[in-house]
Amino acid sequence: MGIHKYFRSLNELERIIRCPGKFKFEEHSVAAHSWKVVQYAKTLADIEEKNGAIIDWKKLYEITSSHDYGEIFIGDIKTPVKHSSMQLRLLIQQVEEGMVNHFIEEHIPEEFKSIFYNQLREGKDDSVEGLILEVADKMDQVYEAFAELQRGNTEKEFVVMYRNALIKIKNIDLKCVEYFLEQVLPDMVNEETISSIDIKRITEEALAL
Amino acid sequence: MGIHKYFRSLNELERIIRCPGKFKFEEHSVAAHSWKVVQYAKTLADIEEKNGAIIDWKKLYEITSSHDYGEIFIGDIKTPVKHSSMQLRLLIQQVEEGMVNHFIEEHIPEEFKSIFYNQLREGKDDSVEGLILEVADKMDQVYEAFAELQRGNTEKEFVVMYRNALIKIKNIDLKCVEYFLEQVLPDMVNEETISSIDIKRITEEALAL
Amino acid sequence: MGIHKYFRSLNELERIIRCPGKFKFEEHSVAAHSWKVVQYAKTLADIEEKNGAIIDWKKLYEITSSHDYGEIFIGDIKTPVKHSSMQLRLLIQQVEEGMVNHFIEEHIPEEFKSIFYNQLREGKDDSVEGLILEVADKMDQVYEAFAELQRGNTEKEFVVMYRNALIKIKNIDLKCVEYFLEQVLPDMVNEETISSIDIKRITEEALAL
Amino acid sequence: MGIHKYFRSLNELERIIRCPGKFKFEEHSVAAHSWKVVQYAKTLADIEEKNGAIIDWKKLYEITSSHDYGEIFIGDIKTPVKHSSMQLRLLIQQVEEGMVNHFIEEHIPEEFKSIFYNQLREGKDDSVEGLILEVADKMDQVYEAFAELQRGNTEKEFVVMYRNALIKIKNIDLKCVEYFLEQVLPDMVNEETISSIDIKRITEEALAL
Amino acid sequence: MGIHKYFRSLNELERIIRCPGKFKFEEHSVAAHSWKVVQYAKTLADIEEKNGAIIDWKKLYEITSSHDYGEIFIGDIKTPVKHSSMQLRLLIQQVEEGMVNHFIEEHIPEEFKSIFYNQLREGKDDSVEGLILEVADKMDQVYEAFAELQRGNTEKEFVVMYRNALIKIKNIDLKCVEYFLEQVLPDMVNEETISSIDIKRITEEALAL
Amino acid sequence: MGIHKYFRSLNELERIIRCPGKFKFEEHSVAAHSWKVVQYAKTLADIEEKNGAIIDWKKLYEITSSHDYGEIFIGDIKTPVKHSSMQLRLLIQQVEEGMVNHFIEEHIPEEFKSIFYNQLREGKDDSVEGLILEVADKMDQVYEAFAELQRGNTEKEFVVMYRNALIKIKNIDLKCVEYFLEQVLPDMVNEETISSIDIKRITEEALAL
Repeated sequence: MGIHKYFRSLNELERIIRCPGKFKFEEHSVAAHSWKVVQYAKTLADIEEKNGAIIDWKKLYEITSSHDYGEIFIGDIKTPVKHSSMQLRLLIQQVEEGMVNHFIEEHIPEEFKSIFYNQLREGKDDSVEGLILEVADKMDQVYEAFAELQRGNTEKEFVVMYRNALIKIKNIDLKCVEYFLEQVLPDMVNEETISSIDIKRITEEALAL
Repeated sequence: MGIHKYFRSLNELERIIRCPGKFKFEEHSVAAHSWKVVQYAKTLADIEEKNGAIIDWKKLYEITSSHDYGEIFIGDIKTPVKHSSMQLRLLIQQVEEGMVNHFIEEHIPEEFKSIFYNQLREGKDDSVEGLILEVADKMDQVYEAFAELQRGNTEKEFVVMYRNALIKIKNIDLKCVEYFLEQVLPDMVNEETISSIDIKRITEEALAL
Repeated sequence: MGIHKYFRSLNELERIIRCPGKFKFEEHSVAAHSWKVVQYAKTLADIEEKNGAIIDWKKLYEITSSHDYGEIFIGDIKTPVKHSSMQLRLLIQQVEEGMVNHFIEEHIPEEFKSIFYNQLREGKDDSVEGLILEVADKMDQVYEAFAELQRGNTEKEFVVMYRNALIKIKNIDLKCVEYFLEQVLPDMVNEETISSIDIKRITEEALAL
Repeated sequence: MGIHKYFRSLNELERIIRCPGKFKFEEHSVAAHSWKVVQYAKTLADIEEKNGAIIDWKKLYEITSSHDYGEIFIGDIKTPVKHSSMQLRLLIQQVEEGMVNHFIEEHIPEEFKSIFYNQLREGKDDSVEGLILEVADKMDQVYEAFAELQRGNTEKEFVVMYRNALIKIKNIDLKCVEYFLEQVLPDMVNEETISSIDIKRITEEALAL
Repeated sequence: MGIHKYFRSLNELERIIRCPGKFKFEEHSVAAHSWKVVQYAKTLADIEEKNGAIIDWKKLYEITSSHDYGEIFIGDIKTPVKHSSMQLRLLIQQVEEGMVNHFIEEHIPEEFKSIFYNQLREGKDDSVEGLILEVADKMDQVYEAFAELQRGNTEKEFVVMYRNALIKIKNIDLKCVEYFLEQVLPDMVNEETISSIDIKRITEEALAL
Repeated sequence: MGIHKYFRSLNELERIIRCPGKFKFEEHSVAAHSWKVVQYAKTLADIEEKNGAIIDWKKLYEITSSHDYGEIFIGDIKTPVKHSSMQLRLLIQQVEEGMVNHFIEEHIPEEFKSIFYNQLREGKDDSVEGLILEVADKMDQVYEAFAELQRGNTEKEFVVMYRNALIKIKNIDLKCVEYFLEQVLPDMVNEETISSIDIKRITEEALAL
């Protein structure tokens, strides 16, 4: 028993590859994804703060850095599976929480248990920090999918991922979302690409929904 | 709509890696695993046939080659997750079957639908072919885990995988299981190894259960 | 001596990569290729059976799953080398058979020797099963080459491979070949591609030969 | 000009591999390393906070997540090079800062410039947050080097890395260092290993210095 | 102490990847690059010899095969860093030389020291061999960058690398440069490509400078 | 037609992996191997020269750098295949030479043809340069096999490769062979290893033959 088990376990997320099965020009580990989400969230929170929001930086730190920790126990369950029925989604979520809790019970010393229960909980709530995490998480899907399409990947899954992530983002009511859609996304969409897919049109359609 | 979609989809199992997250000296795709299961099953069925069993080779062909096809839709759900509750296990199985059926409905031409429903069904039933598939599938876990331990992998997961697969195999009542345990396994266990783990003892304990 | 040596050797085909030396966006092992051939052959045989042919499923199982087993001993000899002279081709085939036979002599127990001699023989004879194997083997070249061209690979070798495999297939007199050319190939050729190569024209020219 | 350039650039740290040139059983990207440092630092700060320290979580967030961002511009300069002369070390640091500043000038909009200058500065100062970052960064070297030694890597560089990182850590006066040395490190050192290197002795010697 | 240390160290250049951080369809090790430079230089020297130059083949052999040996000690310092200030460039060069010399002092037996000092010196001097090395080294950048652009890589770095290498080459006054620009480069530029970048125009502009 | 085809083709040897099929902790391309052979040969020739031999450095340069060029056309034919019959070996050699010659005919301009015929010929003749090439080529097998065994690889093939290469080397009558066996090999054999294989004994036995 001890925190060593927790520190050691982080290494596993370096070996879980996102979007398994689909052809991709570049693979991304869950660990690298988690770091990019931490980085995006920092700037998104800066923007929100500039616009008057009060950010709980400790909370933001905790929920962004740990948001995919549960994948160590669950593995890569494909998005369509999770969404195939509300009942299954809840069950998987319960199992994941159960496993995380079991890990805490077994390996985390008594004095740190409450801290870990708090940190490893589902972070995507309705607080400003929870919403920023949701935006940052989806932004990484936008960046990953865009890079594949840009290099000529013809797998439809990346069009779907790009589009769904954009729709999710635009429906979140934050100043940083406005900033992303108006100041960041256009720079991405205007990058050179060899794709035969009309990314601009897909972007406009997603934002018009 | 068309069988092209099915043929093309096979490629995805070349990109799904078994036992995600754990450190391993050698990775195995689900496609390569499937081929080894086809090969083991052939020899297991030969042994069974020599001992008087009647093998339905068409059925054996169909169920061994397709036994992990559903992973295209489901992805890598870790064994502990599947086994965490009977309810979840059933639900995941239902979702997998639902997705396979949906694929057949959408992509397989009318005239072949019944053939595909038959081939892509769960093959591990109580027939001799279903039991041989179960043995062959577990045998590949034994081979994969042994090779990791032999090269000095210290991840406990491979000890657990090796042991559980052996226990599963030895409880199946087939002549080819006897042959495997008496004629094949000892050759494996006697191979040179740099592991500090006592594979012989683990093997004996598992077989004594 | 023992079947363990045979089971263990299968692992080697996971590490032999097809089409060595050429740039490719995606690598394929001989093991994964073998599995896809098993799968294609199953459906091709289903089509043939629907059209009245009688399939020896045991034979088809044996020859498709083992058709590249000899590469364990021979390695990747490039196609142009094999075809550079009839004399060399025969000699290489003799050496391969000699090595497979030597392996059987040395490692396979007496009681299974005849089974293994039968299974590991060259399967591409003029029987319906041998012809189906030939079609399935070439179909995988068509799929591999098409996927590279589709993603923008400019290596001429993949055009040659695609074309030669198509020509080989169309000259085999089976109902499943008709089905492949009329019902499957058009779906492939109509997929989205970023290639500057005119795959449709190449396909038409190959089929017109 | 725009923050898109910054977000896009993060991807580069997924492709820079730590400890280039040395043989290793497992590679680590700078992005994955950065995420693990973020995670370690969180728990180290929790420990420090429990012991009465006041943590500026926003600062800790900023400096841990960005602490290797400069490697995008500089690349992998080996530690011995950096340490070969004080003059060179200062010059490299100046060039790195110059390049980061140039990036901010060129790509970050006016209104965010001061935020980015603050975030992308060298974070390892004498504040509690700066010290925690130093401990967390060295802890990842301990974990990386230990895992290589444990699997039987005989490269001396990993012994040196393990030892130097431990020495660096133990000389930092924080409660979390005490905790790491007394509660975490022993669990690591007691893990199973196939190494012929006496990790316990190396650990004891490093801590006794 | 002994030459074994030198022979063993060569292996490290197989693990140092050129152009770290940038997305590329194909990675190149410093060892493979070194071999291609050896090969290009041989033909360039043949051309020069045909045109009346006298080549010191021993010197050419020594400087081409060892020209990047120092990277073992220095690692991948990005070109922009090296060129950011004349002072830094000189310092890095001094450190590299110091480390190579230190290696020779420590590991090379007395009787071979002068040979190794001579071989591992900076080879790009104004002799015909030094100039041929410079051309061959830049030619490999041209080939590497061209292949990435040809396959649709949109990273600007490869356009810059291609262009700068061409400019460097064309300013070297050798007959083999004329041959390369007039007889080799046009064949490269006329190869099929899926790039949206106008490589011909970039080539013409670089050569017109 | 043109030398561009030759320069471009070198890239293929970066993608042909030595010793295909066998499990290895580290892969080596034929290009990287070729570079190491160039390097070993240089020092071997230095030793020979110190002992009074006269080295034709141009010839040595040409034959070492090009000694595996033919593998571009032939691919990875396993050593046991080549050696299975003298007749096959000669045939394969003829085919390889035929293909190299055909390449020269088709792609190398008239004025360079004789140079290329000379350079791409089989270099392992009885001249001092040819013998040095043979030693250097086998030395790389010794280094490759030793490194695998040292890290705990249990594949018998590497013991065989190590032993056969040593035997080949020791039977060549050169001063540099003496130096290698007396001054270099002992340093290698005394390196730390986790292997359960007794490398010292194998070495002594091979040298005693």
